[in-house]
Amino acid sequence: MTVENISVNKSFGGWHKQYSHHSKTLNCAMRFAIYLPPQASNGKKVPVLYWLSGLTCTDENFMQKAGAQRMAAELGIAIVAPDTSPRGDDVADDAGYDLGKGAGFYVNATQAPWNRHYRMYDYVVNELPELIESMFPVSDKRSIAGHSMGGHGALVIAMRNPEAYQSVSAFSPITNPVNCPWGKKAFTAYLGRDMTTWAEYDASLLMRQATEFVPALVDQGEADDFLIEQLKPEVLEAAANVSGYPLTLNMQEGFDHSYYFIASFIENHLRFHAEHLVK
Amino acid sequence: MTVENISVNKSFGGWHKQYSHHSKTLNCAMRFAIYLPPQASNGKKVPVLYWLSGLTCTDENFMQKAGAQRMAAELGIAIVAPDTSPRGDDVADDAGYDLGKGAGFYVNATQAPWNRHYRMYDYVVNELPELIESMFPVSDKRSIAGHSMGGHGALVIAMRNPEAYQSVSAFSPITNPVNCPWGKKAFTAYLGRDMTTWAEYDASLLMRQATEFVPALVDQGEADDFLIEQLKPEVLEAAANVSGYPLTLNMQEGFDHSYYFIASFIENHLRFHAEHLVK
Repeated sequence: MTVENISVNKSFGGWHKQYSHHSKTLNCAMRFAIYLPPQASNGKKVPVLYWLSGLTCTDENFMQKAGAQRMAAELGIAIVAPDTSPRGDDVADDAGYDLGKGAGFYVNATQAPWNRHYRMYDYVVNELPELIESMFPVSDKRSIAGHSMGGHGALVIAMRNPEAYQSVSAFSPITNPVNCPWGKKAFTAYLGRDMTTWAEYDASLLMRQATEFVPALVDQGEADDFLIEQLKPEVLEAAANVSGYPLTLNMQEGFDHSYYFIASFIENHLRFHAEHLVK
Repeated sequence: MTVENISVNKSFGGWHKQYSHHSKTLNCAMRFAIYLPPQASNGKKVPVLYWLSGLTCTDENFMQKAGAQRMAAELGIAIVAPDTSPRGDDVADDAGYDLGKGAGFYVNATQAPWNRHYRMYDYVVNELPELIESMFPVSDKRSIAGHSMGGHGALVIAMRNPEAYQSVSAFSPITNPVNCPWGKKAFTAYLGRDMTTWAEYDASLLMRQATEFVPALVDQGEADDFLIEQLKPEVLEAAANVSGYPLTLNMQEGFDHSYYFIASFIENHLRFHAEHLVK
């Protein structure tokens, strides 16, 4: 296993680092970023928040734009940001921004040509944490968060693996992909036309049936252009009411889908995760 | 005078906005960004911090990556970020990243072909503040700051107009452009080979001779790849010692030239400016 360091930047007394490695799950080279807070330099193992980004993003968007490192440094939490899809010249792609590279949707594709590489669910759930916990001074305490497509990924992954995550949060998540244009397009391509196979990747369907709970926080801007057609937080809230899921949904007046929204509330999300991660 | 709004994002209870306007100084269309803190929505006039970016940047880099809006909202300070050069198909350019578009160096060019558009000094000192103060609920209290090439611009502009600025700060500024490769290349092109015309754009030469003072704060990373050849903070510090200039220079161990450095210390800079702007 070779893991190559690409960049190092000191940030709020800790370190932002990018790495490239060969992913056996995705069958290609992958890049990820990690923020190690100052506490990780003191021989102490710190917990990890995994951040899943939205459509078109890489490992860089959150690290550069969210302003998360200030609070991660204060609270002693590492942050890991993977890429949003497999990458490389031999990886299948689509002309749309919402399918193929940059749009892995955190599923394990079953349909050709996608099933050669697109296994982001397994990558985020298994291979990446194993790599992180073998390379860095981190504990096995994990939480997960994301934005938009990544918010969908975070909710699905936490609900399907409640023993593995202390808490989950999302900004502007796609909450019900089986019923929105982005989700239908991606799931048809990656999973095929049999919609019964889609349910295990739908946060609202999972939340409605849940019997084991991971504390969940969602923030959604009311001025988000994608709110009504793609995101549908009311569907997630209704599902939580059915199962009694511990979901806090904050609707934020005037805020849109951008990183300006994420930056405005990331401190609240990090403090929420710290309550569950830092004991 | 037509000024076109390009984007609006709510951010920390205030508003980030981008505009395009025709600059008569630069003889082209220019874009700028403004962050208006929540206090500006309450019928109160807020002071303005002008931010000058470095080589290759636009109005977007600082607004997206510095994490400045959190403290600007708390302290009640607007931030204005202009572009770093004139723009457009008929604007002279160079193949290098350090001359031409994205590299205006905040000077008034005297040499062809640059003198048709490259008058960033006059734009930042006169036209832009007049426009800002006519359009937005801001007071005439101004401070100025910048990074690298923009740190050079901020220091030069504050020292040549001490009556117009309450305070000045810089991250990793080019302090002595007449004696570094970036400065020599740009000044030769924009100002010509007669080096006597360069002095009015050299922060260290201006600081050495200063008799009127603007409180100044500079942060410089010790792991900055450009430190020794291009930035030379020791020259600025020596100049301050000659004139008794009120300069605080902080050398920061381990930090580099990136926005991760700026984000780590922007709170200190905004608090410094607030001491002088918010009375």
